[in-house]
Amino acid sequence: MGAREILAQWGVDEFRVIDRQALSEITLGASILATGGGGDPEIGLLWAYNVVEQGNEILMIDPEAMPDDALATIAGCLGAALVLTEKPPNGQELFWCYDSLRRYMGRPIQAVVPPEAGGVNTPVPMAVAGAVGVPVIDADGMGRAFPELQMTSFYIHGVSPAPTAAADEDGHVTISDAKDAVLTERIIRGAAMAYGGISWIAGYPMTGRQLKDTAILRSISLAWELGRRVFLARRKHLDPVSEVISVTGGFRAFQGKIVDIDREFGAEKTKGFSLGRITMQGIDAFKGSTATIDFQNEWLTLQVDGKVRCMPPDLICILDPATGEPIRTDIVRYGYRGTVVLIPAHSRMRTEKGIATFGPRYFGYDYDYTPVEELIKG
Amino acid sequence: MGAREILAQWGVDEFRVIDRQALSEITLGASILATGGGGDPEIGLLWAYNVVEQGNEILMIDPEAMPDDALATIAGCLGAALVLTEKPPNGQELFWCYDSLRRYMGRPIQAVVPPEAGGVNTPVPMAVAGAVGVPVIDADGMGRAFPELQMTSFYIHGVSPAPTAAADEDGHVTISDAKDAVLTERIIRGAAMAYGGISWIAGYPMTGRQLKDTAILRSISLAWELGRRVFLARRKHLDPVSEVISVTGGFRAFQGKIVDIDREFGAEKTKGFSLGRITMQGIDAFKGSTATIDFQNEWLTLQVDGKVRCMPPDLICILDPATGEPIRTDIVRYGYRGTVVLIPAHSRMRTEKGIATFGPRYFGYDYDYTPVEELIKG
Repeated sequence: MGAREILAQWGVDEFRVIDRQALSEITLGASILATGGGGDPEIGLLWAYNVVEQGNEILMIDPEAMPDDALATIAGCLGAALVLTEKPPNGQELFWCYDSLRRYMGRPIQAVVPPEAGGVNTPVPMAVAGAVGVPVIDADGMGRAFPELQMTSFYIHGVSPAPTAAADEDGHVTISDAKDAVLTERIIRGAAMAYGGISWIAGYPMTGRQLKDTAILRSISLAWELGRRVFLARRKHLDPVSEVISVTGGFRAFQGKIVDIDREFGAEKTKGFSLGRITMQGIDAFKGSTATIDFQNEWLTLQVDGKVRCMPPDLICILDPATGEPIRTDIVRYGYRGTVVLIPAHSRMRTEKGIATFGPRYFGYDYDYTPVEELIKG
Repeated sequence: MGAREILAQWGVDEFRVIDRQALSEITLGASILATGGGGDPEIGLLWAYNVVEQGNEILMIDPEAMPDDALATIAGCLGAALVLTEKPPNGQELFWCYDSLRRYMGRPIQAVVPPEAGGVNTPVPMAVAGAVGVPVIDADGMGRAFPELQMTSFYIHGVSPAPTAAADEDGHVTISDAKDAVLTERIIRGAAMAYGGISWIAGYPMTGRQLKDTAILRSISLAWELGRRVFLARRKHLDPVSEVISVTGGFRAFQGKIVDIDREFGAEKTKGFSLGRITMQGIDAFKGSTATIDFQNEWLTLQVDGKVRCMPPDLICILDPATGEPIRTDIVRYGYRGTVVLIPAHSRMRTEKGIATFGPRYFGYDYDYTPVEELIKG
């Protein structure tokens, strides 16, 4: 059965066909929202292009169109983005995950929802949906990228990641079925390490009802609009950063040149991630100011002249001022120029359990969460 | 369906009912064959007694009686024996494993085979067979105990451990389905570590044909005879060590007092195991001699006065000379007296792949394997 048959069965006649151009726009937007993480978009895009070129259709529907009792899972990859670039997928990993999960659960998976906004984990689940023949839902679990499996709106609103299946390029599959989401994260990350640094995963099985109640809704549409507007700005020689700010409701918080990258900073705290701290020297309106940005796969916190201006889960995007292209933690280099845009996290990410799960204290900072809207004022 | 129904279906009318006394004899024998590892027999025995007292029957059959196409798996635990003592099972772990494995494989498991000879991993699979209602096969995968999942006669003769399921006392389940046995070991051990040091596992699914072609056949009967004879020796004030030698065809290689225990020795080589080296000072016929024995969960190598006398996979058993009780690596203490008995490994463990998988070089020794029969001569 294909995605069109599933939609007909559901009585859904509104959907968008995701073509090559849509994929490139969505992926650019998602990689901007990925706050420096989310991996190399070339890998995700190539895979998705390939799926479309083989004659598969990627059909995206609004979350409200998904029946309450239908079953969706996430699909994507987990591990350090740097490894992903060295170890590209063979394209079968996620099918192996789906097959294992379906056998283990004893019921078919009828839809795919992207786990996060990212250069890999947005186009890849769309490609998987196309290849498997199920619709993709216009939503994700973060509205940004985050390093760990439990750091989702799904989890903080009551959906368990279990069971989650993880595969590598040799067809090795690990299934973790643990009520404890942090334990699932540890086991799946352990499998990723055993696989050589990266694993491809499917999991977080949830009903349509659960998805509507817990996901970041219509975030793929947001990424799409973001990507579309940045491409347009490039063609029309407009300021792409202004487009990003206009679409997302973000703030222009800093502009400068990267003068130091310390990849050892904080290395004793966490293992298995790209982490460290960069320092930027202000230019133009920010001349004389210094910014430091800590990262763990994603940009986590921004300090300007010693004052904290943004904490997780709010978004820190460093953009190339000329192209709007995001600067990622895995490719950032000394001398790059960047504009720092801060975007308030989605309200579904800002609950008490959300702040406990991915707020500043979880990442080892000794201060409480304050929303970026307040921090940028003072 | 119970074990008797399965046997009737197979047309098997010869079986032995394993009662409390049989369990205690088999467990004593298995813990002697465990070469210092295999964990605290009290834990395995208590569980097995409990299963019998609840009215379950444990029925053991000869491997030849199992149909070629019936499906068996191992059941037991994996981790450091020390942790096991601090973290006893709740009795449900292996049922969760069986349930997950059955769902994942889509077919019922019709028999249990113990993975090794050990104080835990021999009585526990027998108890599981009784509780699940399937027969237990008179065989195991080592004829001794070994620390890692791939160190079995099953594996070296072509049976994969995949899929293997691992559960903890909270019902968290991990399934590893990897063709690569060493990868399965890494992932399942990673799960054990994430669970707090120990996991309960079921896996190595194999047909009756595969079992007959790869297992250490009738090793439970051997353990039973060994346990029976040692209990008899204690009652009749005979020498229990002579009984062990007579049943196993072993050699009395040393007698002495433990004068040093170095639990740090070799610690840089391997993680997640009980490892180290003990030194014994000879007494009686061995007065003036010194023996050192290295261990990694199990006793691995014996040197007497600087000469190697036993290497893996051959068995090193240190027995209390008065009771024949085995001295384990996790409970050995300064001042203990022990008689060292060496037993040739089963011929199915001595193949080229066997020596590569669990011979001296695998454990980091820089010499080739020589059978104990030759080593004790010179």
